Amino acid sequence: MDPESRSQHTFHRFDSEIDDLRNQVLGMGGLVEQQIADALCAIFDGDATLGQKVDQKDPRVNALEVKIDQECARMLVRRQPAAGDLRFVVAVIKTITDLERIGDEAGKIGRLAMELASMERPRNEYAEIHNLGARVRSMLNGALDAFARTDAEAAWEVARQDHLVDRDYEGVLRQLIIFMMEDPRTIRRVMGVIWTVRALERIGDHSKNICEYIIYMVKGQDVRHISIDEMEGVAKGRP
Amino acid sequence: MDPESRSQHTFHRFDSEIDDLRNQVLGMGGLVEQQIADALCAIFDGDATLGQKVDQKDPRVNALEVKIDQECARMLVRRQPAAGDLRFVVAVIKTITDLERIGDEAGKIGRLAMELASMERPRNEYAEIHNLGARVRSMLNGALDAFARTDAEAAWEVARQDHLVDRDYEGVLRQLIIFMMEDPRTIRRVMGVIWTVRALERIGDHSKNICEYIIYMVKGQDVRHISIDEMEGVAKGRP
Repeated sequence: MDPESRSQHTFHRFDSEIDDLRNQVLGMGGLVEQQIADALCAIFDGDATLGQKVDQKDPRVNALEVKIDQECARMLVRRQPAAGDLRFVVAVIKTITDLERIGDEAGKIGRLAMELASMERPRNEYAEIHNLGARVRSMLNGALDAFARTDAEAAWEVARQDHLVDRDYEGVLRQLIIFMMEDPRTIRRVMGVIWTVRALERIGDHSKNICEYIIYMVKGQDVRHISIDEMEGVAKGRP
Repeated sequence: MDPESRSQHTFHRFDSEIDDLRNQVLGMGGLVEQQIADALCAIFDGDATLGQKVDQKDPRVNALEVKIDQECARMLVRRQPAAGDLRFVVAVIKTITDLERIGDEAGKIGRLAMELASMERPRNEYAEIHNLGARVRSMLNGALDAFARTDAEAAWEVARQDHLVDRDYEGVLRQLIIFMMEDPRTIRRVMGVIWTVRALERIGDHSKNICEYIIYMVKGQDVRHISIDEMEGVAKGRP
């Protein structure tokens, strides 16, 4: 094999390893999305058994985290990637940490579903969890989609939604605290709802983190500690 | 320069880069420890100004996070470290993420101190925050110390304390909820205390994460999803 075709060959193998890694991250993301869906379903349906299932965690998520981490380390040693490929590997290492923590938050919601299932249902049928849950699930889905397409602009569009989640969360929290003060008999249940919306808010944060890694990966610039407008400039490649 | 002395030379320069990176991580850790100390002080003294100072975050923490991350990426490209050195760099990348999030939690406590400063002080002078705060600060300090000494056994000793923090936290939470039910006029203040102990509990989690990275760095084995007893086996090098 002449050197050029060898390097082509290596190049292609590396490309396919990158694709493989990307697919594994997306697989892990899909499992975590399912955990959130199940956890919320357990709350809405008062299904303690489903809540317990989510609480016990999906061993496939942990296994994928460990496996992907090992493959990243191996790739760093064997392939010694530079520039964009290196940033991709670093972004993957960080992304899977956030995905694993999203899984933890889903587990907490599962645990809360078990508690809530034994209590009287609120008259609003957990409307606040419905709304915030839908927003946060759409953020995570958008983040994974932007990761799949290595799309910095799409990642920015998702990241900017985080302040809406924060705003909704703060509003819901204020309402719930007033609710407890007005009717202290509901305190236990309302605390369950508070921890649930808190977990959802954190899932929004983790999804935003993933978007920041995507922008770093595509644009080569760290956007973690800048404003959302400055982040837009980086994502859209404005000077 | 003959090849051997050149490689010695490179080796030494790399060693000093590793030392330099380690010192920067410890510097970041020290700043974050100070943030926690200030945030708790703001609560105990009812000092809204100090609380606000912590809430505004230490720009040096963010700057260090970005700088250390860049140096890790540069090191991966230029030095192409293998084995232990590679694990060190990966552990640093993960550690600074947890340190930055600990800083975020300290900022939240600062914000809560501002709110609590305007309310009547509880008769127990925030005893629960005192106790949990002391435990969690000692965990973070121990984690940073184990990092400084690359000591897997010490890291395990710190990691195992996390379940005590979790146990204390759960107990405090139960008490606080009963307290709110007994005297609903305290709900706002008690919610402030609940968010504070929650932030402390998360700082304990992040400190445990750092310990897991240290064990991975020293022993080359991922200990994130195994029991604390299995982790002991890895940290102490038992078969």
